[in-house]
Amino acid sequence: MPTIAFEDLTPGRIIDLGGVKVDREEMLAFARRFDPQPFHLDEEAGRRSVLGGLAASGWFTASLWMRAYVDHVLAGSTSQGSPGGREFAWPAPVYPDDVLHCRLEVLAARRSRSRPRLGLVDITGTAHRRDPDVEGGEECVLRLTFTGFFGTRD
Amino acid sequence: MPTIAFEDLTPGRIIDLGGVKVDREEMLAFARRFDPQPFHLDEEAGRRSVLGGLAASGWFTASLWMRAYVDHVLAGSTSQGSPGGREFAWPAPVYPDDVLHCRLEVLAARRSRSRPRLGLVDITGTAHRRDPDVEGGEECVLRLTFTGFFGTRD
Repeated sequence: MPTIAFEDLTPGRIIDLGGVKVDREEMLAFARRFDPQPFHLDEEAGRRSVLGGLAASGWFTASLWMRAYVDHVLAGSTSQGSPGGREFAWPAPVYPDDVLHCRLEVLAARRSRSRPRLGLVDITGTAHRRDPDVEGGEECVLRLTFTGFFGTRD
Repeated sequence: MPTIAFEDLTPGRIIDLGGVKVDREEMLAFARRFDPQPFHLDEEAGRRSVLGGLAASGWFTASLWMRAYVDHVLAGSTSQGSPGGREFAWPAPVYPDDVLHCRLEVLAARRSRSRPRLGLVDITGTAHRRDPDVEGGEECVLRLTFTGFFGTRD
């Protein structure tokens, strides 16, 4: 029986998705294949850019978040995929060896009118890096607001 | 000298980003690493899902579009990255061996008030698959609306 179904994803619920370390080699391999801009590939080009250093492709950061979401929520759930979302934001750069703390919050949930055994869940997912300059501080590096389809339990 | 700067990205401009074939093995490898949901990994699970068959992770589709965008626009441009966007949509599934036709349209462009040598460009990127059931028809499989930062030429 799935761990998580539509009925479990109630508005206001926050789910911790754990920490993810950014592997430098994987970050570079992703950039070489999908986003070969100089600031994603080269230290010096990164330093000269607005990113301030060699930084991850935003799609790599989103993909790391996705994996944490699958591991902690979707695996064994009634997930039926996603039609997309209304926000993706990369408010700060991600650097090699950063540890990103991933979580999600359920914003809203409703049953489909046309398919009563399906629910639509609006979710904001975030990743934060611990900010070394602020005691207990965190810096948001990713925010995704999207809709997920989940089967109902009943 | 960069090929494309802020001044070139005028509202209404449409840029063709070419065709991209979806490689089945790469699609599966991406899913195993970043989005290991059954319908992205297994034919039979795909057929039983709303996706109707083994289908790509939406993040893989977005990453393929990004590569086409780098190859046709960003490489050699004055790009300074992106803070994110306000829409990502996967209106139809992507299957192995699909050929996706990628393009973008410039929606709006304005200079930064605080940094006059930087421009903000709002772009909608799309990928379409030729629809075999409709003569000349295409089906949209990806839509991304986001802001890009570009240096000015002057």
